[in-house]
Parts: sequence; C-alpha cells; structure tokens
Amino acid sequence: MDTNGFSNGGSTQGKPIKCKAAVAWGPSEPLVMEEVEVAPPERMEVRIKVLFTSICHTDLSFWKGENELQRRFPRILGHEASGVVESVGEGVEDLVAGDHVVPIFNGECGSCAYCNSTATNLCKSARVNAFKSTMTLDDGTRFSVVDQSTGARRPVYHFLNTSTFAEYTVLDSACAVKINPAAPLEKMCLLSCGISTGIGAAWNTANVSKGSTVAIFGLGAVGLAVAEGARIRGAAKIIGVDINPEKFTKGKEMGITDFVNSKACGKPVHEVIREMTDGGVDYSFECTGILDVLRESFVSTHDGWGLTVILGIHPTPRTLPLHPMELFDGRRIVACTFGDFKGKTQLPLLVDQCMQGEVKINFDGFITHEMPFSEIREAFRLLEEGKSLRCVLRL
Amino acid sequence: MDTNGFSNGGSTQGKPIKCKAAVAWGPSEPLVMEEVEVAPPERMEVRIKVLFTSICHTDLSFWKGENELQRRFPRILGHEASGVVESVGEGVEDLVAGDHVVPIFNGECGSCAYCNSTATNLCKSARVNAFKSTMTLDDGTRFSVVDQSTGARRPVYHFLNTSTFAEYTVLDSACAVKINPAAPLEKMCLLSCGISTGIGAAWNTANVSKGSTVAIFGLGAVGLAVAEGARIRGAAKIIGVDINPEKFTKGKEMGITDFVNSKACGKPVHEVIREMTDGGVDYSFECTGILDVLRESFVSTHDGWGLTVILGIHPTPRTLPLHPMELFDGRRIVACTFGDFKGKTQLPLLVDQCMQGEVKINFDGFITHEMPFSEIREAFRLLEEGKSLRCVLRL
Repeated sequence: MDTNGFSNGGSTQGKPIKCKAAVAWGPSEPLVMEEVEVAPPERMEVRIKVLFTSICHTDLSFWKGENELQRRFPRILGHEASGVVESVGEGVEDLVAGDHVVPIFNGECGSCAYCNSTATNLCKSARVNAFKSTMTLDDGTRFSVVDQSTGARRPVYHFLNTSTFAEYTVLDSACAVKINPAAPLEKMCLLSCGISTGIGAAWNTANVSKGSTVAIFGLGAVGLAVAEGARIRGAAKIIGVDINPEKFTKGKEMGITDFVNSKACGKPVHEVIREMTDGGVDYSFECTGILDVLRESFVSTHDGWGLTVILGIHPTPRTLPLHPMELFDGRRIVACTFGDFKGKTQLPLLVDQCMQGEVKINFDGFITHEMPFSEIREAFRLLEEGKSLRCVLRL
Repeated sequence: MDTNGFSNGGSTQGKPIKCKAAVAWGPSEPLVMEEVEVAPPERMEVRIKVLFTSICHTDLSFWKGENELQRRFPRILGHEASGVVESVGEGVEDLVAGDHVVPIFNGECGSCAYCNSTATNLCKSARVNAFKSTMTLDDGTRFSVVDQSTGARRPVYHFLNTSTFAEYTVLDSACAVKINPAAPLEKMCLLSCGISTGIGAAWNTANVSKGSTVAIFGLGAVGLAVAEGARIRGAAKIIGVDINPEKFTKGKEMGITDFVNSKACGKPVHEVIREMTDGGVDYSFECTGILDVLRESFVSTHDGWGLTVILGIHPTPRTLPLHPMELFDGRRIVACTFGDFKGKTQLPLLVDQCMQGEVKINFDGFITHEMPFSEIREAFRLLEEGKSLRCVLRL
C-alpha cells in the first residue's frame, strides 16, 4: 500500500480534506456515499487516512437506531479499521504523520487515575461511550456535509470515538494506537474491536488457564475470538453454543472442540454443559446480548469457582435475571470492555508478538469477505444475514 | 473451665447423653429448655460439649420461620459456639476427646474437588446449606426429645451443620475446627460466624489494601467485623452506613472513620459517598440483606475497579436490581460465605496469630452481653431489639 505523501504531514496538513464517507442519514436508511469535509485535528487529536475498515454488529445496531439514544443522524459509523496518520494536532507527541495506526473505541490517555490503575482499561475521558457523538475537546464534530435538501453544510456526528466509514477521520490521540509498520493493515483492522475483545476476554478478564473448560454462547466474531484466546491458552474443552449448527464448522478452526445447538438439545443448555463437564465449565462467555442466554451462561459454570464474562451488549431495560443468593454458590459474573486491553500500552506488543510468531492468532479465519469501500451496503447485508464474520472493506 | 473427664473419651463415649437444649417448637414460639437425648457420633462425626454459644441474626430468622423453607420444627438452632470434643465417631482422625473446637456451619472435608481448589471454601458435602436439617451421613438426626403432648420420643432437627443451643451437639467432623487449647473459648465462639465472616470478607474476598476506601452498609456484628478487617489492613477511610446513629459510637472502636445516616442524609447514599471519596469507594460491603441497599452499595463504589461484597442474606424472590450494562463500568459484585475462610485449614492459624498478638482483633468489642444459657430468651430479645451485638451464653 502507498503511504507516501504522509511522512512530513503532506500538503493537506492544517487544511480541511474533502473525501468520501458512507453517511447514515436515518435509522435503517441505506448508507449514502457522500463527499464530506474533514476538519484538521484540534489539540490532542489526529487525522488519519483509513485504509481498511470492517463492520461489527454494533455498527448495525446503531445504524438501525434500535434504541432511541442511538439515533443521532447524520452520522459516520464504523469503528474497526486501520490506517495511516495524515497529520496530528497541537500537543500530540506520540504520533507523527505516516505512523501506522489502529483506531480504538476505548481510548487510553495514559495520564488519568484510570489509566494509572492496573485494574481497569476505562480511561477517564476517552473510554467507550456509545452515546457520545462529538469530540471530547469541544463537543463539536470534525465532519460536515452538504445537505442535498437544503443545500446548507451541516455537521455529521461521530461514532464510538472512531467513525471509520470514511476515507479520513479525526480521532482523539488517546484512540489511535501506533503499531509496527510492517504489520499487514488489512488484518490489523480486526484488532480495533472483535479480535481484541474476544481474545482479551479470555486472556485478561477471565485469565483462562491451561486444561480448563470453557463455554462460549454466540459464535459470531467475538465469540470465535474468545475461542481463539482460550485455544491459545491451552483450554482442554471449548464448548460453542449457538442456534446455527453451521457455526460449528467455522468454530472448529478457532478451537471450538464441542458444539451445543441450544435450539435442538432438548433441555436447558446449562444441564447439557454440566453433564459434559462434570458440574459446569470453569469459564463462560456471553456474546449474544440476550438476557436469557446470559442466565444460561451463568448457571453453566461450575459452582465454587465459575466465572461468566459478559461481552454482549444488552439493549433491554430488564435487570440481571440472577438472584442475589445465587452469587453465594461462588459463581462470579463480570463484564468486559475491549478485552480489558489497555489499547495504547498493550496492542503494539500484541502486534509484535503476532509478527514474530510468538502468538498465533488466526486473523484469516475471521475475514470471510473482502470488497471495496463502495460496496459497504452489501457488506452490511452480509453481516445482518449472518453470512459473514468480518467483511474487510478497502478504501 | 473444667474439661476433665473428656481426655479419654470419658464414661459417656458410645452412649446417648441426656442434657439440656433450647428447643424451637414452632415459628416465633419462645424457645423451651428441654431435656434432649444426644446420640453418639456416627462415622466421621464428633460429639462436642458446648461451653459457650452466641446468637446471630440467622438464628433469629429461622426461629421466626420467615421463609417457608426455614420452618422445620422441633429444631435446635444456634451456630456460633465453642466447646470441647466429648467423643469421636469411626474414621475421625484429626480430632480426639478433649480437643478444643469451634463449630463451623460451612465445613471443610479436606478431600473433595472444592476443598482441593484454592478458589472456594464451599466443600462438596459439608458446605453451608440453610435448608438442611439432618446429618449428611444418613439424613437422620442425633437429637430426640419427648413430646409432652403425646409422650412419644421424636427427632429434633439440626440447624446449619451445628445446632449449638444445646449442652452437647453432634457435628460432621468437617464442621469442627480444632484450635489452640490456650485460647479463651468464651471469645473464640465468635469465630464460628460473625467475626470470621466479616474479617474474612475484608481479607480474603475483597483483599482490602492499605490506604484504600471502604463503605460498610449495616453496622451489626458482621459489618463491624468487616470494619475490623479493613482497619487491620490499613484502609484510609472506612465509612459506616446505618439508619441508627448510635451504631457510629460502637463503630469507631472497630475502625469506622466516617458515618452516613442513610435516613437523614437528604440524598441517595451513593451520592454522599461518591462526594466523600472522589468518585466512590474501592470496596463496599452489603450487610443488611435489603436489595435496595445492595444497589446503593454497588453504585457507591468507584467505576473501573470498585468491588461490592454481599454478606447479607436476601430472602426476597426479587432478582438483582442491576442492569447488565452497569457491569461494563467496571464495578464488580460477589458474595462471600464465611469470609471465604477454609475453616479447618485457616482458623487455627488465625487463632494462633491472635494469641501471639500478631493480629489484634477486638473480640471484646463485639461481646456486649454475657449471661447463662438459661436466659437465652432474653438474649434473643436483646438481639431482636438491636440492643446487643453479641450476647455470649455460658453453658
């Protein structure tokens, strides 16, 4: 890929850039490829040229605007990507034009009390915030577009600190991770969300141990990334649970050793899993966002030491379907954001380990489709219909 | 105290013993001091002479039979005690007649998968089970009494693996902890439940660190024992929350540094606590068994790393009043049984540490009343009216 022209900030530094972006104008309205204007980065921001982006269910969910709070339009969605720094704003010292970067929706400023704590990866200012649609600095946007109906230029909202369905985007520098320039960017985009979230849930949140037993509820990209993480850690049994038996075929590549079809197993899944594992798994992972599945995943773990990690986004207003006394059986439940990775600190090391073959993550297994950015509507359709795991778009 | 006559098993070995016990005949019916017959211990059981017993809210709750499942009468309640082994059943190798022991409601057999795991103190066979009312071996009872209305001898049910409101009781040997014979038994009885539970919650479950901040909801004996544990660990701020401001006076002795009267503070307690602690405490402990308090204790912790430990028994059928997405703020919630102490392994060491002054637990501060066993009804009244923390009964 050609990254020339960026190493000295290039001719675009300090100026607005006009480029293509896939704009969401309203709930479930087909994305429109618009010419947007991308303002230069402000203080502690960076502007990056997006080279690859993929699509995740969270993009789908906000596109549909299922939840009233999600409806902020026009908006540029997208949060899984990789690219090159075009220019940096005042005060940015750890990035320069030309750096290869992966945007992260859960940033790391490196200096707040949270970033200084080893217990959390939630930064004070740059943490994930699904309902934020502007930049932190001034609550403004860096995108604008001409509204065809009025002819006036209007702001376009940001999404998940990233907005990667655009040829250029502006990020808080806390949300741009510099990685080894030799790493293949078309694969590294998966570290922006799905793979990091799943692998990190197994490694950092659950700390899956060699010889242990694992159940994963929901075999989308995140669930399969959990399997990858558990497989790499040497888990003895990795049970995949899904309503689609075809997922098992893919899942075997990622380390799934056993499959339970929750629609066809004839009794509650937790009973099946307890029978398969002499009382329950050591770790379960809830990757569906469905509360009844959350309960099944919780009671599928072994009492005394079972840990359930929630990865699914639960849009329901219902509260946890667990009785407080059930916690006295020694089962624990926690949630996990971005695999509990501190993105700027830990991802560059992970990339290096992958490059050196110390960690073997099956990136290719996740990429079921590749197409040009212009075919983003088709990519959305494939994900919505469950036909793709990750479709990588080339910009 | 006189422990003679026990060192060789004494003349009672292998025979039933007739002795006094406070029998609960029905929900909220005043306990009746009856002559009961206590059978000899069966395989892997021990019979102990109870020398001191105290009363805990769980005794009150089962006496009242608030929950239908609690109503099993006639029954001998009581689970906080200390005494001397009178005789042991077949197969018991770690205890002999004359040993000083503390009964524990949450036993440790020492050989099951749970006992072999460092992650839990829930034994497979001898764990706490509030709804169990017989011995594990044969589902039978070791107590019987003559029913005055019929003249017939009938079984008297056991309670919480212990039944200490009796001059003699029979325990699974997994539930009898041998302690240093030089330790004062009139204080050691508090290690059977309240003090171990609270101190262990701070030490083992939460692992309270030096300089940290703590909030304790409910300043009964368990809550104050949490404060003791946190004080010994060097917590910087220990906030007590209760509706009774008199609890603060006692609480100061146990390390409570700040008090919030949740009835009089004018806004939700978690707001007050967040203001006092720059965003929330590191650890909160729920010692009331009230779900709304559980929620307040959860949201009183700091996002990112706050941990809530549930100690209260929640009789309500309502589920946890927490939304799954709230867990993504990095707050965690776990429950704690018996302070996560493995009783037979760890309590003897704790007793030795107390004897040697290495650990300074304020046992005396918890003992607000002492009286003879015969005054047990009065002791119940004091606890029910909130006038005592622990009333130690001499047998």
